[in-house]
Amino acid sequence: MLRDRFDQPIGDGFVHHGTDVETQWQEPVPYLTPNDRFFVRNHTAPPRIDARSWRLLVSGDGVIGDTTYSLADLRAFTSRTVDRALECTGNGRRLFGEQQGAPRPGTQWGLGAIGVARWTGVPLATVLRHAALRDDAVQVTAVGLDDPYVEEGVNHGRVRRPLPIAKALDDVLVAWAMNGEPLPLDHGYPVRLVVPGFYGTYWVKHLSEITVVDELFAGFWMGTAYRIPDTMGACVPPGTAPKSTVPIGRFNVRSFITSHADAATLPLNRETLVRGIAFDGGAGITEVLFSADGGRSWRTAQLGKDLGNYSFREWTLPFTPTAAGPLEWKVRATNRLGESQPLEPLWNPPGYMRNVVETVKVNVAA
Amino acid sequence: MLRDRFDQPIGDGFVHHGTDVETQWQEPVPYLTPNDRFFVRNHTAPPRIDARSWRLLVSGDGVIGDTTYSLADLRAFTSRTVDRALECTGNGRRLFGEQQGAPRPGTQWGLGAIGVARWTGVPLATVLRHAALRDDAVQVTAVGLDDPYVEEGVNHGRVRRPLPIAKALDDVLVAWAMNGEPLPLDHGYPVRLVVPGFYGTYWVKHLSEITVVDELFAGFWMGTAYRIPDTMGACVPPGTAPKSTVPIGRFNVRSFITSHADAATLPLNRETLVRGIAFDGGAGITEVLFSADGGRSWRTAQLGKDLGNYSFREWTLPFTPTAAGPLEWKVRATNRLGESQPLEPLWNPPGYMRNVVETVKVNVAA
Repeated sequence: MLRDRFDQPIGDGFVHHGTDVETQWQEPVPYLTPNDRFFVRNHTAPPRIDARSWRLLVSGDGVIGDTTYSLADLRAFTSRTVDRALECTGNGRRLFGEQQGAPRPGTQWGLGAIGVARWTGVPLATVLRHAALRDDAVQVTAVGLDDPYVEEGVNHGRVRRPLPIAKALDDVLVAWAMNGEPLPLDHGYPVRLVVPGFYGTYWVKHLSEITVVDELFAGFWMGTAYRIPDTMGACVPPGTAPKSTVPIGRFNVRSFITSHADAATLPLNRETLVRGIAFDGGAGITEVLFSADGGRSWRTAQLGKDLGNYSFREWTLPFTPTAAGPLEWKVRATNRLGESQPLEPLWNPPGYMRNVVETVKVNVAA
Repeated sequence: MLRDRFDQPIGDGFVHHGTDVETQWQEPVPYLTPNDRFFVRNHTAPPRIDARSWRLLVSGDGVIGDTTYSLADLRAFTSRTVDRALECTGNGRRLFGEQQGAPRPGTQWGLGAIGVARWTGVPLATVLRHAALRDDAVQVTAVGLDDPYVEEGVNHGRVRRPLPIAKALDDVLVAWAMNGEPLPLDHGYPVRLVVPGFYGTYWVKHLSEITVVDELFAGFWMGTAYRIPDTMGACVPPGTAPKSTVPIGRFNVRSFITSHADAATLPLNRETLVRGIAFDGGAGITEVLFSADGGRSWRTAQLGKDLGNYSFREWTLPFTPTAAGPLEWKVRATNRLGESQPLEPLWNPPGYMRNVVETVKVNVAA
């Protein structure tokens, strides 16, 4: 199957949004989302890059001098292979719009702009230290080779999302492989950032330049784009301008039912296994609660194997309906820090970081 | 009743920790905690101040010139009267220590270092603007007239806890009355700060000076004291030094059972009303869940009247035990942002900001 704009092969089990696609979780997905089932989101068309001539430039006031790396240079460092979940900041935006009666601008994602892959690359810390990192470095910004982003005639340049230096030195990867294969074009060939627990906008694809700065970076991509109302501002009613905003960062706690979709039918008096996933920004999921009565009472679900704080945590719950009729199922997760999910969606203008307790409406056959 | 060190009258229903006292919630407390039932925490002895000669000095690079206010000057501004909860940062510290098998240094609070009072004063924003606030102000620090704090021979000076300018201009009060009476000596006579949703260390008592600064304040009180491991650092095991720390700020979400204490006995097959309180840092409590089976299943409690986001939210749940024997009751709250409470306590060296789901062990009589 070929897509209309790019010649990237992709499998079935997707919902299409123009040239973005989201994973349909009700078509069973293995623990590692296969490359041809992994959601795709691009600001602009992915560039054609010859990996032989590709180079990564590391520069800025936070390093001593400029250093350039070929793909072979990066591979010569000690590499790591890790499982990391990736979520689009706007995952669930369509549902935000539906619940508010007004669509939010942007890709109209359902809940499928998420996946977990096994990434291989070199720690960004290794590269930065090789490039002679200075003590006064405070942020790392990266840009890719995709085209600048133009919106309503204004050229915002390339996505440039500053990472705090502490995160950059912690567990960020400069990755060239995804699930054991070279990065597909739509996933950042030849090299992308992997930023555990941070939303997709930080995971710069087609990586070209890393700039280490010794003062806080401003500009459109940090000062204007990808921001949400600050904590208390999130409580303002829809349509009200928030007083101040903060940049998006780590994943909110979320959980989904993947075994059943809206309008699924269940047999009466027979046990059904309800399944799903939960994840957070890296503290680790400690509990998943399931409600079959629209949230009036909750039962603790069985957690699957702990595959690391930046992966999905699978959960199951055996459920036997004892009366015919409609049921409202809900699921909510809590992490080790006590962060959980709100009962009502938190409004924000761009429809970001949705993590409301989601509902699936099923029917028990008579 | 007189206390041993100060001649402040206090009522019964307290647990004493030297010259600090905490409220016993199992002795019924009205919605507004009376002044003589309100917990007391002082770093050093409260100073004797003559309100007639008392003055507040507002100065620093963030205002134009120095301005001095008498109590009459402050009262001449338009005042506000608001209900605001106050919690000590270390509330529950004794339980931290018990669960870890090693006491944390500091006052060995149970869960009674909390209360809600009706405060009257002038908005700090009014005072700062009167004192000619400059656009480049970034923080406001305040000090009181109590003695400097000396620890192991080191004089750390007076408590000085910088507030971000946005908070200072939002809803902070310079208060002279508590529940309709002049501030008691132990609660900051003649004037204290009221900092809604922020832990008690920000609520400077016996207010003397406000300094508005145009660069971030450092020093012991912001750089060393009253800090906790940062979010991810909170996941390190007890005894491990965290990589970095952040200053304490807003209240964590918490909830307590106040109707029953450990070892309470319930009649079999008779309905008992379980009662308690919940609160958070200002987003508003949206849900309280109660478990009678140690957290395997949860029921939604009935929320009491919404008295504002910075007050307590009362909750009730009718419960009828149907079998004799011991029960583990648990309560957890969630706020509008989806913030909730962890199932295991989050370790930090000073025993601050505890908000684990608390347990009360009751017995059902045969």
